[in-house]
Amino acid sequence: MPIYKAPFRDQQFVMHEVLGAVEMLKPLPRYADLDADTLNQVVEEAGKFCEELLLPVNQSGDAEGCTYDVASRSVKTPRGFKDAYAAFCAAGWPGLAGETEYGGQGLPHVLQIAFYEMQYSTNQAWAMYPGLTIGAAECFLLHGSEEQKNIYLPKLTSGQWTGTMCLTEPHCGTDLGMLRTRAEPQADGSYRLTGAKIFISSGEHDLAENIVHLVLARLPDAPQGTKGISLFIVPKFLAEGSGVDAKVGARNGLYCGGIEHKMGIHGNATCQMNLDGATGWLIGQPNKGLNAMFTMMNGARLGVGVQGLGLNEVAYQNAAAYARDRIQGRSLSGVKAPDKPADPIIVHADVRRMLLTARAYAEGGRAFAYWVALMADLQFHHPDELQKKFAADMMALMTPIVKAFMTDNGFNCASECLGVLGGHGYIREWGMEQFVRDARINMIYEGTNTIQSLDLLGRKVLMDNGARLKAFGKLITDFIEENGTASEMSEFVTPLADLGDKVTKLTTEIGMKAFANPDEAGGAAVDYLRIVGHLVYAYFWARMAKVALTRIKADGDRVDPFYRDKVTVARFYFERLLPETASRIRSARSGVKNLMELPAESF
Amino acid sequence: MPIYKAPFRDQQFVMHEVLGAVEMLKPLPRYADLDADTLNQVVEEAGKFCEELLLPVNQSGDAEGCTYDVASRSVKTPRGFKDAYAAFCAAGWPGLAGETEYGGQGLPHVLQIAFYEMQYSTNQAWAMYPGLTIGAAECFLLHGSEEQKNIYLPKLTSGQWTGTMCLTEPHCGTDLGMLRTRAEPQADGSYRLTGAKIFISSGEHDLAENIVHLVLARLPDAPQGTKGISLFIVPKFLAEGSGVDAKVGARNGLYCGGIEHKMGIHGNATCQMNLDGATGWLIGQPNKGLNAMFTMMNGARLGVGVQGLGLNEVAYQNAAAYARDRIQGRSLSGVKAPDKPADPIIVHADVRRMLLTARAYAEGGRAFAYWVALMADLQFHHPDELQKKFAADMMALMTPIVKAFMTDNGFNCASECLGVLGGHGYIREWGMEQFVRDARINMIYEGTNTIQSLDLLGRKVLMDNGARLKAFGKLITDFIEENGTASEMSEFVTPLADLGDKVTKLTTEIGMKAFANPDEAGGAAVDYLRIVGHLVYAYFWARMAKVALTRIKADGDRVDPFYRDKVTVARFYFERLLPETASRIRSARSGVKNLMELPAESF
Repeated sequence: MPIYKAPFRDQQFVMHEVLGAVEMLKPLPRYADLDADTLNQVVEEAGKFCEELLLPVNQSGDAEGCTYDVASRSVKTPRGFKDAYAAFCAAGWPGLAGETEYGGQGLPHVLQIAFYEMQYSTNQAWAMYPGLTIGAAECFLLHGSEEQKNIYLPKLTSGQWTGTMCLTEPHCGTDLGMLRTRAEPQADGSYRLTGAKIFISSGEHDLAENIVHLVLARLPDAPQGTKGISLFIVPKFLAEGSGVDAKVGARNGLYCGGIEHKMGIHGNATCQMNLDGATGWLIGQPNKGLNAMFTMMNGARLGVGVQGLGLNEVAYQNAAAYARDRIQGRSLSGVKAPDKPADPIIVHADVRRMLLTARAYAEGGRAFAYWVALMADLQFHHPDELQKKFAADMMALMTPIVKAFMTDNGFNCASECLGVLGGHGYIREWGMEQFVRDARINMIYEGTNTIQSLDLLGRKVLMDNGARLKAFGKLITDFIEENGTASEMSEFVTPLADLGDKVTKLTTEIGMKAFANPDEAGGAAVDYLRIVGHLVYAYFWARMAKVALTRIKADGDRVDPFYRDKVTVARFYFERLLPETASRIRSARSGVKNLMELPAESF
Repeated sequence: MPIYKAPFRDQQFVMHEVLGAVEMLKPLPRYADLDADTLNQVVEEAGKFCEELLLPVNQSGDAEGCTYDVASRSVKTPRGFKDAYAAFCAAGWPGLAGETEYGGQGLPHVLQIAFYEMQYSTNQAWAMYPGLTIGAAECFLLHGSEEQKNIYLPKLTSGQWTGTMCLTEPHCGTDLGMLRTRAEPQADGSYRLTGAKIFISSGEHDLAENIVHLVLARLPDAPQGTKGISLFIVPKFLAEGSGVDAKVGARNGLYCGGIEHKMGIHGNATCQMNLDGATGWLIGQPNKGLNAMFTMMNGARLGVGVQGLGLNEVAYQNAAAYARDRIQGRSLSGVKAPDKPADPIIVHADVRRMLLTARAYAEGGRAFAYWVALMADLQFHHPDELQKKFAADMMALMTPIVKAFMTDNGFNCASECLGVLGGHGYIREWGMEQFVRDARINMIYEGTNTIQSLDLLGRKVLMDNGARLKAFGKLITDFIEENGTASEMSEFVTPLADLGDKVTKLTTEIGMKAFANPDEAGGAAVDYLRIVGHLVYAYFWARMAKVALTRIKADGDRVDPFYRDKVTVARFYFERLLPETASRIRSARSGVKNLMELPAESF
């Protein structure tokens, strides 16, 4: 069975030494009393929960999968999932970052992200049930009426009920403008919904007493396309105080028609949901459903990025343990373990390359994701409007990068780590191949990584003439000004500055081309996201190196080896991973002609 | 269910128009009567077999897998595998390239590779049973005594018996020097073998009446390490004329102790094999077993590379069909299908990028692999010693590139193609995720891709001071001299020449560094293989472009669109894929310090 140790030391390093989370959050009245010890204690408790309750049922959950019972149209989750969920609720974990008004603990988003990371390392399929619930709660908070908040938020915050997002239909995923599910207004203010949804994660299960579906559908008089989509609350069992002439607690007319057989995340039920005159209530404004759904979607995209991080981390830990232990062959530069019949494979340069790749992406991704989580808090709760605006801009800019860059890396690193185990990595019992299978979905759902790259380049960068990108660039230039003269920082600052310049030029170049031919944006977007992703990681790796070098200088020989290792991994990142940008820039600049020239019928 | 159409047009283009297979083979007395029509007819018949018998049982074979019966220690293959194998034997396919002396048809190796490609596209798990048998037959041919050849080759050539390679033991895979299986000589000239093997592909099954295991083991007086390993023939049922005082046809003392549960290739039984005083016979010289096994291993490595090609091709075909058919969203540059509610996703630049990536690697790989297959024929059968030597050098140089470059590409392309289908790609019913799962093993078995890269850089390039690489470089410079002045070829010839220069410099640089510190080779090897792989593909893509451009010039507007498409894909390759070398060269040159610095205990 795979191992996992929650990465507390690195989480604390990132939160406190690199990002200064407490200092960032203190100015928010909501977090005036926050201190580092509280953050650390919560993370450690959360880590224990993941190690003790989620990890043990991850591999078995994959093997067993969810089962669908045709007669009752119900889904059974794998053995142990229900107990883990009950323990999760009993300990109050669902409301960690939830509003105190509705029973939550009102702790900062960065804690939630740290917890997510560990949940996804230990059991992504399980963690998707509560994960989507938090997104649903956020949607209620921002778009629900007072009555709706009062009915749904306490139950979602306690975990008694879970939530889903019902968007996709068989003929439309990315293109929601085509969706067909209809909602007919009823005299009592409710709606009757009819249609079929697919790929509904956590759509039906046995963990909670009720499931609150947030369903996209069309009103009878709705305009065509995405401007005619509204969002509805459709609970599995009718909720109290709904004002409907139906028995509260009655089973609603939406049922799971079957579950998908997938490459991975077997323990999460991916449901076909049939709405057969189901009762629902409008949430938010009519025809503005996509806006409301995007609140949830953006939260989900951050969550998915962290899924990439979680799998990246756990795959690394298992491959590293194997590489230290497995003896096979001798080092090219001479015997390293003369007392053994062979050297541990960690002596081999390429085994280290695979491991360091996963480690550098995990640690860089952790710093980045936790920073974005802090931005989420600032965006919602900072008293200063300028800070709020800056945080909102950063959230908008970074969401597609978190989603796509971190999930690409998560999949690739899981696969590299599988490779460290050789043939054993391919065998189920070692658990590595599950990480690879689970990781592949993260590049797809909540908007494919291609969609993320178009969102980044088109909507987040070109549409505001690069204003958000410049705001982030200002952080980089400030950092370079502060640290550029220190000789020990030059190996990090020089390539960071160089890449910053290149991104500026590339953005202008693509912008000009795309103005003449919008397809040029489509042809450059995926490369562009990888390039900007590296700019972001280079910035956070430089910041981490700075902190570590400062401690090395201060503590001399007695320095905690953690800091020396951090500088070593930073160096690896800059010398071995950042160079990906050289190829990506060439490819992005090559123009869209080489993609569009082949006639469709020739494919 | 996934689709597949055998790529006859492209296979013929490669064999005849690009490589001139018949012209290359004609000087070999063995192939004096060969003509293009024969090659084409055989490929088309072989393709039909794959489409009609293998494809239909590929997905069901994955779902069902092999089953192990503890009581009888036997393995049942999935439904339909046995019938397909019987039809395969009845049609004489096992002996396609086998020696006529033993019942084979004596056709060239390039036909075998073309057939393999289609088998692996349609059912890799199934194709591994006969695939390993061909390797075993080759081993008998080169290392067996006349008696052994007479006993085993007719049955292996007819497919009545299948073969395996038994190398790996639980504690040793890559490092065969540690293997422990013992062989004790008996008075009658046979040996008694005792030990445990794992990861034995096709080790036990119900397709054939007998299984001939080629087993690595140690003689009692054998030197330690790899120089004390011998190779033994250990048939499941004792073979006729073996000269042993045991009943011919008696069950031998080696049994399957269980099968592995794997990420993919579920239809192929990966067996734990226990040898409990099994009767075996030495093949080849005592203590020279690794040499003999490497005959089979090198053939297997070429086969595995072609597995990468096969999956690359079939994944491409399915993703392309989906992209032409699936409507979703509108083109960024304006509506393309006004009569439909959305445009087919093939209008999107990034969908095309994913598809073209897979196509360019498939078509480049096909030209490369078929050329290597021709080298195999030249190596064994060319009357001219110089040509023989050249072909042997090319085989040695290219084997690790076929194995590693093509399987890396196969996995990555299968994953990209899965992405084209979005959420549907992740669902089992579409078959794409099976291609990804099956493709992952190809990067591992028959020597991991890291081992291949060390073989290329260390043994095949640095150890002979780059002589083999220079011999291949001569082909490139000859091509450039012939075509460098044609303006329409400059977009291909210029980057090819540039990369050739860079490879020369890089090789020298790494060689110097590795002389001082052998770990430097280990730290650069994987990047180096990718770089040389691109040099090889750039050469074959330039050759293909040349042929296509010549036809376009000759035929004008009436030219078969196939040739225009070929030039378009060539351009895509040079502008979008070849630039990977820019990053790889930086990484390779960064030196091994960034890999070796982190203490083992810090991982």
